[in-house]
Amino acid sequence: MGKSFFAFAAALAVAAACSGQAPRADAGLVRQARDLFGALPEVMASTDNPVTPAKVMLGKTLFWESRISVDGTVSCSRCHPLGLYAADGLPKSVGNRCRANPRNAPTILNASAQIAAHWIGNRRNVEDQAKQALVGPPSFGMPSYEAAEARLRAIPGYEPLFREAFPGEPEPVTAENFALAVGAFERTLVTPAPFDAFLDGGRPGLDDVQKAGLKDFIETGCANCHSGAYFGGQSYRKFGVVEPYWKRTISPEIDEGRYAVTKDEADRYVFKVPVLRNVEMTSPYFHDGSVGRLNDAVWIMGKVQLGIDLAEARVKGLVAFLHALTGKIPAAALEVPVLPASEATGAGLNPRRGQT
Amino acid sequence: MGKSFFAFAAALAVAAACSGQAPRADAGLVRQARDLFGALPEVMASTDNPVTPAKVMLGKTLFWESRISVDGTVSCSRCHPLGLYAADGLPKSVGNRCRANPRNAPTILNASAQIAAHWIGNRRNVEDQAKQALVGPPSFGMPSYEAAEARLRAIPGYEPLFREAFPGEPEPVTAENFALAVGAFERTLVTPAPFDAFLDGGRPGLDDVQKAGLKDFIETGCANCHSGAYFGGQSYRKFGVVEPYWKRTISPEIDEGRYAVTKDEADRYVFKVPVLRNVEMTSPYFHDGSVGRLNDAVWIMGKVQLGIDLAEARVKGLVAFLHALTGKIPAAALEVPVLPASEATGAGLNPRRGQT
Repeated sequence: MGKSFFAFAAALAVAAACSGQAPRADAGLVRQARDLFGALPEVMASTDNPVTPAKVMLGKTLFWESRISVDGTVSCSRCHPLGLYAADGLPKSVGNRCRANPRNAPTILNASAQIAAHWIGNRRNVEDQAKQALVGPPSFGMPSYEAAEARLRAIPGYEPLFREAFPGEPEPVTAENFALAVGAFERTLVTPAPFDAFLDGGRPGLDDVQKAGLKDFIETGCANCHSGAYFGGQSYRKFGVVEPYWKRTISPEIDEGRYAVTKDEADRYVFKVPVLRNVEMTSPYFHDGSVGRLNDAVWIMGKVQLGIDLAEARVKGLVAFLHALTGKIPAAALEVPVLPASEATGAGLNPRRGQT
Repeated sequence: MGKSFFAFAAALAVAAACSGQAPRADAGLVRQARDLFGALPEVMASTDNPVTPAKVMLGKTLFWESRISVDGTVSCSRCHPLGLYAADGLPKSVGNRCRANPRNAPTILNASAQIAAHWIGNRRNVEDQAKQALVGPPSFGMPSYEAAEARLRAIPGYEPLFREAFPGEPEPVTAENFALAVGAFERTLVTPAPFDAFLDGGRPGLDDVQKAGLKDFIETGCANCHSGAYFGGQSYRKFGVVEPYWKRTISPEIDEGRYAVTKDEADRYVFKVPVLRNVEMTSPYFHDGSVGRLNDAVWIMGKVQLGIDLAEARVKGLVAFLHALTGKIPAAALEVPVLPASEATGAGLNPRRGQT
């Protein structure tokens, strides 16, 4: 929690006092929620990748670009369709040539400020994720970064866009800049929700059931891991603290989790705590997408993480609160960019043309 | 050419006269082009499927819906991505479970007023195409219309949208209404281009090379088939009038064309004349997507349809003119709709839950 948050909270308090508003009946809960979660930023900034309008515009265009995948069918938007809150509704995403991805595609909304990317933290950040996706066998599947760059350079309309986004670079059309541009776009994907209005006294805020759900979310222990402005993404935890997760899900197989990255026994079945913003909209749940209903996912979390058999009414309250995390996708992100034309995709002219 | 067109042309002439404009130096070419092609309508209307705002909104939403395909990966937008001018850049589209489609995906822009849908005319219109796509083995791949309807009904947010679009129907969530809604959306996808500005004296219009290209397009015979406001879509023609098309393309196999529909020998190698609007943006070309460069496609057409070996300068002029058919996609169509949430896609809860 930085200084700016306290300054912001203090400013709000002053504003409320000056406006002559009555003190809020839920002031204690608001204060507690502000401490635990804090204010959602406008952009998930990065000193390594400053967010500029030209970079965001290019990144948004590249986000839709399928011609840089090995079979021409995969773009970022394939596994992260914005109309489905940037998740794809599948247990596990399907990439080029129908290759299955190892885990469920998490939403990329509110996802750029996490400790790492991917469920097991094997990508440093969204830029690293975007870059490696180009050559990832189950994603874009390109044989090399050079091959991906050749595809980009074969679409003449991209050069001016890269040049504007990365001024002064002699050869701006690179996989590295692809990643920086897509990352800059992703860093703008923040979705303010009723919960945020609740924090600063705006509308619609939370109804009484949702407030009770929030209180339960904090007191039961959900907020211990699902903390910060994004409700997660800040730590790794074992999935199945009290009992193995697969005893409660119907996972098709057991996933060793972050152990695959570190080879440390302590990381077996450990995953990054997922961001809960917009969770209502991103079924199915968990790293393997094995659970379709949010109520079930909440009950399972109580059981395997906390050893609690949550009663139906409590599950309902928690889920009602989670609905208050469903936010508004920035309008600019929902505008489909028109991609530059290409003539490179067809097989070309019959050599027999020369035989006329 | 209906009465309304002549009324429109006469009104334009009167307007020009009253405004005291000097007569256009290209008045003869304009008049000829108006006669051959006519004005682009605002909407491709249908008496069978009146275009209403509620139907268009629902259709736009359904256009993006992938959860009604057998493997959850196919929506209309998969093969007709709007950012790529509603074609997918592939020689042949790839559908559910990586199944290859038999022919190249044509753009759905300016496509709703053709004599039929699909290259061989085996779909009556865009509504018929949308409906049959649901159960088409290489497209959505659903086992039946009932199964597709069950998927739609499992997403509770759709019922109110269908009810608004189809008022008074006891059960509006049907495959038939899916098709009518998607068709209504497609009927709004008209893209005014510089050529249309040229017809009514607006900007940017055509430059001198493009005017020469238009003249050549008419005089050489291209406009005999690529006629009407959409530059095609109004008739069937043999591909390869003068010599077999596959002598000039590098088609992977020979396609019997409309013969597959009619079993009439006269229809062998016959295809629907494709719409040329936005052709610059929809590489690769022909029913099998076998040619990537537009210049090559134009040269091949001269050779196999007209028996002319078009010189490079003429090809360039014709292509320059075709660029004047690249239009503006309606802004509303480029806004990604947020789809209703669903909890139906996950595998569900482990039955062992009951064993606590």
